[in-house]
Amino acid sequence: MRVFLNIVPVSEAISVIRGLAPAIDPESVPLSEAAERVLAQDIASDLDIPGFTRSVVDGYAVRAADTNGSSDAIPAILSFRGRVAMGAGTDMTISGADCIYIPTGGVLPEGADAVVMIENAEQLGDEILIKKPVAHGENVLRFNEDFSRGETVLRHGRRLSSQDVGVLAAAGCISVPVAQRPKIGILSTGNELVPVTEVPGPGQVRDVNSYVIASFMKELGCIPVVYGIIPDDREILRAAVGRAIRENDAVLVSGGSSKDERDMVAGIIAEHGRVLIHGIAIAPGKPTIIGQCLKRPVIGLPGHPASAFIVLIALVRHLIVSMTGETGSRIRTVEATLTQNIPSTRGREEYARVVVTDGIATPLFGKSGLLNTLVKSTGIIRIPAESEGLETGTRVEVILW
Amino acid sequence: MRVFLNIVPVSEAISVIRGLAPAIDPESVPLSEAAERVLAQDIASDLDIPGFTRSVVDGYAVRAADTNGSSDAIPAILSFRGRVAMGAGTDMTISGADCIYIPTGGVLPEGADAVVMIENAEQLGDEILIKKPVAHGENVLRFNEDFSRGETVLRHGRRLSSQDVGVLAAAGCISVPVAQRPKIGILSTGNELVPVTEVPGPGQVRDVNSYVIASFMKELGCIPVVYGIIPDDREILRAAVGRAIRENDAVLVSGGSSKDERDMVAGIIAEHGRVLIHGIAIAPGKPTIIGQCLKRPVIGLPGHPASAFIVLIALVRHLIVSMTGETGSRIRTVEATLTQNIPSTRGREEYARVVVTDGIATPLFGKSGLLNTLVKSTGIIRIPAESEGLETGTRVEVILW
Repeated sequence: MRVFLNIVPVSEAISVIRGLAPAIDPESVPLSEAAERVLAQDIASDLDIPGFTRSVVDGYAVRAADTNGSSDAIPAILSFRGRVAMGAGTDMTISGADCIYIPTGGVLPEGADAVVMIENAEQLGDEILIKKPVAHGENVLRFNEDFSRGETVLRHGRRLSSQDVGVLAAAGCISVPVAQRPKIGILSTGNELVPVTEVPGPGQVRDVNSYVIASFMKELGCIPVVYGIIPDDREILRAAVGRAIRENDAVLVSGGSSKDERDMVAGIIAEHGRVLIHGIAIAPGKPTIIGQCLKRPVIGLPGHPASAFIVLIALVRHLIVSMTGETGSRIRTVEATLTQNIPSTRGREEYARVVVTDGIATPLFGKSGLLNTLVKSTGIIRIPAESEGLETGTRVEVILW
Repeated sequence: MRVFLNIVPVSEAISVIRGLAPAIDPESVPLSEAAERVLAQDIASDLDIPGFTRSVVDGYAVRAADTNGSSDAIPAILSFRGRVAMGAGTDMTISGADCIYIPTGGVLPEGADAVVMIENAEQLGDEILIKKPVAHGENVLRFNEDFSRGETVLRHGRRLSSQDVGVLAAAGCISVPVAQRPKIGILSTGNELVPVTEVPGPGQVRDVNSYVIASFMKELGCIPVVYGIIPDDREILRAAVGRAIRENDAVLVSGGSSKDERDMVAGIIAEHGRVLIHGIAIAPGKPTIIGQCLKRPVIGLPGHPASAFIVLIALVRHLIVSMTGETGSRIRTVEATLTQNIPSTRGREEYARVVVTDGIATPLFGKSGLLNTLVKSTGIIRIPAESEGLETGTRVEVILW
């Protein structure tokens, strides 16, 4: 009895799912809202940064050559010519054997090529004793040393960090072109499901998936649109899936944990469009369905939350990243040494949960359906389909939650 | 000429800043809004999970002993007794040499102790041929194997992940006690600053810090309250700082890049309360001020964005984590091997930017005031104050952005 017509490898599923990703239109957001969003265009600086050669310390602007050989015992003696004010240009110049007080961030006067830190100088009336030599260029940030006018400061596809926002501020980009947040329709189906607010009766379980999937979609920068529990009635489910497809950029239907239900979900996707993949060589997560309706991807996820979550991590993440055009994978990993053998079945990619402490990865054995190991673990190890398992002492890459 | 009265080590600054953190009151949020928030109480499950012994595959519920020795060639033959329906209890029982069809997630009938996968069975009229033995407990998730009723499922101080939200859903926690988002007042000061919307004139720079700091505070789960650029006028700045202290849980004043400005910021903090630290042995970031007014922490950050950002990472992060009671550090690190020597000054903790590729950390040399290395780097390496630098080949821990 064949349950799955055609089980495909994970790599193929990823390639198909990336191919289905509809490109998301860009929008402009204020700079203060830009963090975490995915940049939709290259951004160039509208000016040179810094716009003038500036001091990075409080001290005295000098010609470095005038400080040669100076020391505590034999200081160089320079004439004090005045002070640079903050936030203004200066028309003072240095010609030789003289110096000008300059605050951190002040404009380096013409003729000066370095700044002596105030700790290494002493004022005596109109003369400044310099007690430590400086090199040419020391303690200054040169005109356009950071970015030149017109230079690309950040490339499209970058998910913006706090520092990136700072660079955009410096570059004068106050309205930021970013990919819109993809709208993701989320449906749960299954006769066994009851809302989280209820106490499950015999054979029933709470609808955990709506929450896990919506939270993960938010984490990836999407707008989750939760349709709740759809009864296992073919007509009702077909209508709900159809509505979700029309209202969103992609749809995730979780449930159909039993074969009959899975077949129904696949059948409904086929009615609205087409099923490309039904069954993936991944554990947990085998009964995953990948389809397309109205040019929008529709994914059937396993009913069990722990399995659904692995499929979100291993597959659906690629879909979202492709939709927004994000260039990074957003996957954080850490290397660690395995403390125990992990057996695995050749022919399917398996994901094992581990706790990582001080570079040591300890597998959390137990059934893949457990939620408790999902929250007790630091992350997961991917065991390739070609492998029959990993041995104690192996260096592994842990995908961090 | 002493610029800093008393430079303290980073460890002392962290300890002081943690000691100043006001405890933030808890609030309740709907489960769908709980991701990323910090749990304020331990949460116990309101029921046993699973609430019944359930199958994790589609197949036949059996007594494992009845399948002993079965194979393709010599299958065990069991009587077919019916089907378990999804989402309902069952009063069917197994007594011996019989079996019941069970879908994934179905209730295991009394008498059964394992499930044979459908792929390993064949129906012939009223008889089921079992072609592979199963062990006791195989393919089932036992009653309360995941969590017991009353068991703590998540502890307070945990920053909630998507999986955590799933566990809370399963445990019936629909209104989640979390720490309120701390309100952080953000002020920029300095005569050289112009709004990001303007083109800086001679000696002027854009107010990058308001954006960097607000973005980073959001990333840490806070509500940033931006007061914008406050002129370097003592009375105006004093009033603005006072207002920010009254309106927020903590205040960050950036600027005062020159000594005179720093002294003014410190003086204003002292007028409103007290200055505990003025100067930290950290590079970049030395001119940091830590104070307290109205029992709220007030931090004076360096004016240069690149320096301010390192202080946010190295110090202010500890303040926020202490305020919300978060137990994790939220710092992600990766180990890598240094490709080049990094010199460092003994007596101060230095932060060097590196690019990490395939486990190799390449330092991005250049002045600490550059923004471009802040966005080109993967993260930073902390060089302890006791060290005179790190040598090529050293294994280092990179703090990822």
